[in-house]
Amino acid sequence: MALPMSLSARQLAQAIDHTLLKPEATPADIERLCAEARRHRFWSVCVNPSYVALCRRLLGRSSVRVCTVVGFPLGALPPAAKAWEAARAIRDGAREIDMVVNLGALKGGDEALVLRDIRAVVRACRAGRALCKVIIETALLTDAEKIRACGLCVKAGAGYVKSSTGFSTGGATAADIALMSRAVAGRGLGVKASGGIRTYDDAVAMIEAGATRLGTSASVRILEEARARAALRTR
Amino acid sequence: MALPMSLSARQLAQAIDHTLLKPEATPADIERLCAEARRHRFWSVCVNPSYVALCRRLLGRSSVRVCTVVGFPLGALPPAAKAWEAARAIRDGAREIDMVVNLGALKGGDEALVLRDIRAVVRACRAGRALCKVIIETALLTDAEKIRACGLCVKAGAGYVKSSTGFSTGGATAADIALMSRAVAGRGLGVKASGGIRTYDDAVAMIEAGATRLGTSASVRILEEARARAALRTR
Repeated sequence: MALPMSLSARQLAQAIDHTLLKPEATPADIERLCAEARRHRFWSVCVNPSYVALCRRLLGRSSVRVCTVVGFPLGALPPAAKAWEAARAIRDGAREIDMVVNLGALKGGDEALVLRDIRAVVRACRAGRALCKVIIETALLTDAEKIRACGLCVKAGAGYVKSSTGFSTGGATAADIALMSRAVAGRGLGVKASGGIRTYDDAVAMIEAGATRLGTSASVRILEEARARAALRTR
Repeated sequence: MALPMSLSARQLAQAIDHTLLKPEATPADIERLCAEARRHRFWSVCVNPSYVALCRRLLGRSSVRVCTVVGFPLGALPPAAKAWEAARAIRDGAREIDMVVNLGALKGGDEALVLRDIRAVVRACRAGRALCKVIIETALLTDAEKIRACGLCVKAGAGYVKSSTGFSTGGATAADIALMSRAVAGRGLGVKASGGIRTYDDAVAMIEAGATRLGTSASVRILEEARARAALRTR
């Protein structure tokens, strides 16, 4: 699942979920997001559930997928609610579901609930042929809790572990991405770094630490920087 | 609906939703919250949906209600998802539902969607005899948008307008509470101030500005301060 250390701008774009999750984003903002994603060939647009159907319409036959979030950003919904949200989003056109783990249950040691919660969404995703990523919100966890969360994601059959919502006290760090990569090594899961990735150097640091997907709203800037550097190298 | 300007500590407690919405709150934290609410006779506990059933059990026959949040804190879910979450929470034991308005639709001028969204939750609340409060997230709105949002809450039949989630760039201000009070004056709606209310003086300022309910996690401290001041006055 690892990405090559030296990525072309096109390869980099294909590793990016072009993200806009601000609650005040308008339909006009979402139109811009989708146009950018088509132009730069990002892997997906990542939006709130209320905009999934609009994105699906705007993206038409392009290869850009629609990714959305579930139980976001607090993760504090019952499993059935997360499963319902996921199924509904898939029906609206989402191909990827980024769910937030039940952080209170994880902190409180109720691993059975954490597992049931992830499994409920994984099941909805499988039924709808969607990819399930699990946000563990590293900023709120100890290292032991991060490792435990990754283990539960493996056990529940998730497709990816993801670091952050971007709405907590901190985002992705290279150290956390490396820890998550080690925790899921050899189990076939991807690792998505998200939260605070604003520059090309941030993106490269995450990939070098083991990220196989990036979630960022600075995607256009990052890609332009990647192209500028590639142009410099080939001069 | 207005509260008397000079409240006893008991009256103040009965105007407070004792709130704990941090995503990392554990069941032990929720037990403490419910015990405090019983001891101080707060109007309700306000918790995330994953803890509604636990609170209902913990509160047993006490008069303390369970309040929860829907589409929280971003508000960016489709109307059907918010209605589903509300109905499920009511089934789990919630008597009050604090939903977040669709901020992107409000900012984008799609009043029909904002209205449909609130109405979907109001309908679920009526079916379950629950109170519906609508969080307009004042920190993200212009004054004109705040007034428009209040008008849509009136039109949709909501029970309360509420200022803030506590997860955005700012909380309740006296000026916003006064503006909201004027916007719903004579329409039978309550006004809930929330976000950043940490002291007795904060609480009094909100009530003087027109708040009829307060949402705060500093409730115990506020009530102890209210009692201390009352004791001073009666000496």
